[in-house]
Amino acid sequence: MTQALRHDSMRARNLGVVLGEVRKSGPISRAALAEITGLTKTTVSKMVGDLIDSGMVTESGAVRDGERGRPGTAVELSGERVAALGLEINVDYLSACVVDLTLRVRTRCAQAVDNRTASPVETMSHLQELAQKAVDEAQAQGLFIAGTTIAVPGPVDGGLIHAAPNLGWHDVRVPDLLDLPAEVDNEANLAALGELWFGSAPEDFLHVSGEIGIGAGLVVGGALFRGARGLAGELGHVVVTPDGPACRCGGRGCLEQYAGQDALLRAAGLAGAPGGVPGGVPELLERLRAGEPRPLEACERAGQALGVALTSAVHLMDPGTIVLGGVFAPLFEWIAEPARRTMTARLSTMRHTVPELTVSRLGGDAATLGAAGRVIHRVIADPYLWRRFASR
Amino acid sequence: MTQALRHDSMRARNLGVVLGEVRKSGPISRAALAEITGLTKTTVSKMVGDLIDSGMVTESGAVRDGERGRPGTAVELSGERVAALGLEINVDYLSACVVDLTLRVRTRCAQAVDNRTASPVETMSHLQELAQKAVDEAQAQGLFIAGTTIAVPGPVDGGLIHAAPNLGWHDVRVPDLLDLPAEVDNEANLAALGELWFGSAPEDFLHVSGEIGIGAGLVVGGALFRGARGLAGELGHVVVTPDGPACRCGGRGCLEQYAGQDALLRAAGLAGAPGGVPGGVPELLERLRAGEPRPLEACERAGQALGVALTSAVHLMDPGTIVLGGVFAPLFEWIAEPARRTMTARLSTMRHTVPELTVSRLGGDAATLGAAGRVIHRVIADPYLWRRFASR
Repeated sequence: MTQALRHDSMRARNLGVVLGEVRKSGPISRAALAEITGLTKTTVSKMVGDLIDSGMVTESGAVRDGERGRPGTAVELSGERVAALGLEINVDYLSACVVDLTLRVRTRCAQAVDNRTASPVETMSHLQELAQKAVDEAQAQGLFIAGTTIAVPGPVDGGLIHAAPNLGWHDVRVPDLLDLPAEVDNEANLAALGELWFGSAPEDFLHVSGEIGIGAGLVVGGALFRGARGLAGELGHVVVTPDGPACRCGGRGCLEQYAGQDALLRAAGLAGAPGGVPGGVPELLERLRAGEPRPLEACERAGQALGVALTSAVHLMDPGTIVLGGVFAPLFEWIAEPARRTMTARLSTMRHTVPELTVSRLGGDAATLGAAGRVIHRVIADPYLWRRFASR
Repeated sequence: MTQALRHDSMRARNLGVVLGEVRKSGPISRAALAEITGLTKTTVSKMVGDLIDSGMVTESGAVRDGERGRPGTAVELSGERVAALGLEINVDYLSACVVDLTLRVRTRCAQAVDNRTASPVETMSHLQELAQKAVDEAQAQGLFIAGTTIAVPGPVDGGLIHAAPNLGWHDVRVPDLLDLPAEVDNEANLAALGELWFGSAPEDFLHVSGEIGIGAGLVVGGALFRGARGLAGELGHVVVTPDGPACRCGGRGCLEQYAGQDALLRAAGLAGAPGGVPGGVPELLERLRAGEPRPLEACERAGQALGVALTSAVHLMDPGTIVLGGVFAPLFEWIAEPARRTMTARLSTMRHTVPELTVSRLGGDAATLGAAGRVIHRVIADPYLWRRFASR
């Protein structure tokens, strides 16, 4: 490694340290930034200047540097220039959102579409249109997109989806099908990160994404746990009953067969959403509120199965709390109680505390938000990423 | 924080960096240590001097510093002074070992004893005797014990065992019952670390400890995954059949009820080990080798149940490989095949590769070794720990 390259990577690292501190502690004076980061005031001032030029921070107002310091101007993140695009492909909808550097949501759009009956190329073509709409709206607000992440409902291995059984996709390389540079990550992982960054979850939790498939993302100490190959958190295929109904994953008796959206609608006597359009859950909610026995019984059983799978998950992964998201958010009132009862019966002898079940405030938006948030966090950690992009 | 304290903690950190580098790259010259750590040659020489004085490294032989350098002496870890004591309480045995700074095992002893019929005080009194024997043998070899860790068969929360169902222990504060300063950790966690440090496992694996209870420890990127409260890896209580036999943990149909040592011996028609003495597994092995149908059938069923629980574990935790240890090591030939078959049937549609099942070389010794190794790794990371201890 040459001396010049070393110097450059150290500069990049320091720029990330400064911007990270602005994010954490801003509005903050240059003098305080120098004090906290251990960099010289001259270096900090040069970097703040660069960050202002690239539209990532603004300087405004006046803050006092401690008791005796002179008043100085305050540096804070700017939401007016750099933004990120989050996209989501789910089984029965597509969605997009643009989030600025301050994590404020600037535009958001979704489209109900049955991706089970569409080819990957068709689905990606729809997603491209939705993405373009979001980008156009962001640009009209003066924003530039620093990067894109796509959330997909299946395990992702280096951009490749080996199998997303609920979509019927096999060996699909998602970024190759989109006409803009993008990274891909699992929907449940991104939903957990969305909950961490945009929701009200603490730093230790398991976020459960209830959709047609059920996934989960474990956050420990504010970091996502991914496992050895990035495939962790497939809660939907945890075995509830070993000789239960066959699952699209090739297994039997998986949680999805009891508590997935389709299974739940079927058990509730709703034919499933026609054409995959998400009309089924609102109708289920109406019938639950009306006190119809069959939907209530279906939620009771789904909740019990969820409780069994979560018991195994708690024993293996030891999450702090458990946040129920996706369709489990609107269904929380009916699903959570039997799940909690099942977990308490099975876990409370061995553990002082059984993890609490809470409801996600983000529901179905968590993954799309997490996808955009992931880009923002990477840009803040390495502002050169964006600068390189912007100078093109 | 005062300037002096800051300086001191930086010195402690640097000493750990130097010793860590000696461990990783030794034998190594002082000049190479300075080059790698970025510390001055003077600082490195002073630190190496201190480390020699405290018996943690030795200097010997001659190494050449690169092509043109002058030959210098080589610094390497010394196994002659600093050592660690590892202890294990299991349901039907106690064991102890002493490991030196180079991770060489210097003494090892075990005792079959039924801890289910003994009180915690009685068990700890037996352990104290065993520990004293090991310490005496180590001291006779000129070693000093820098620290002790105790492995226990249950989840540990800050030294407290809330419940170890297989021992019948509740709210036991283990270190309070031992007459030497010791830390406590879960047996399955320490067995995984033992496998990492003393076995032949790679950096990403799930180590399964098959004993009367079944635990697991997940290592990702060379680090143990502990979860939010340090209670992760309780594979033995993953639900195999939700309405299966009642388990001591308060649940039903847990893996231990199908593949734990007692359950397996019962299913094989062996009355269980009399008085808890581990005579049962050797007899089971004899009968398996003789081809007796009932023991073979018992292993087939236990292996299938293990395969179901591991399917859930793979979906949730995504381990690299799976290492079967404890009594599953001698039983590997009969247990692994049905487990592998079950996992392949359930996992191979969704995953490119199903994690390989391998056998632990350490078997029942893994936890005791991991307990001692944990102390050694802490001493190497912070050599002052030992120096403070030694100067008392």
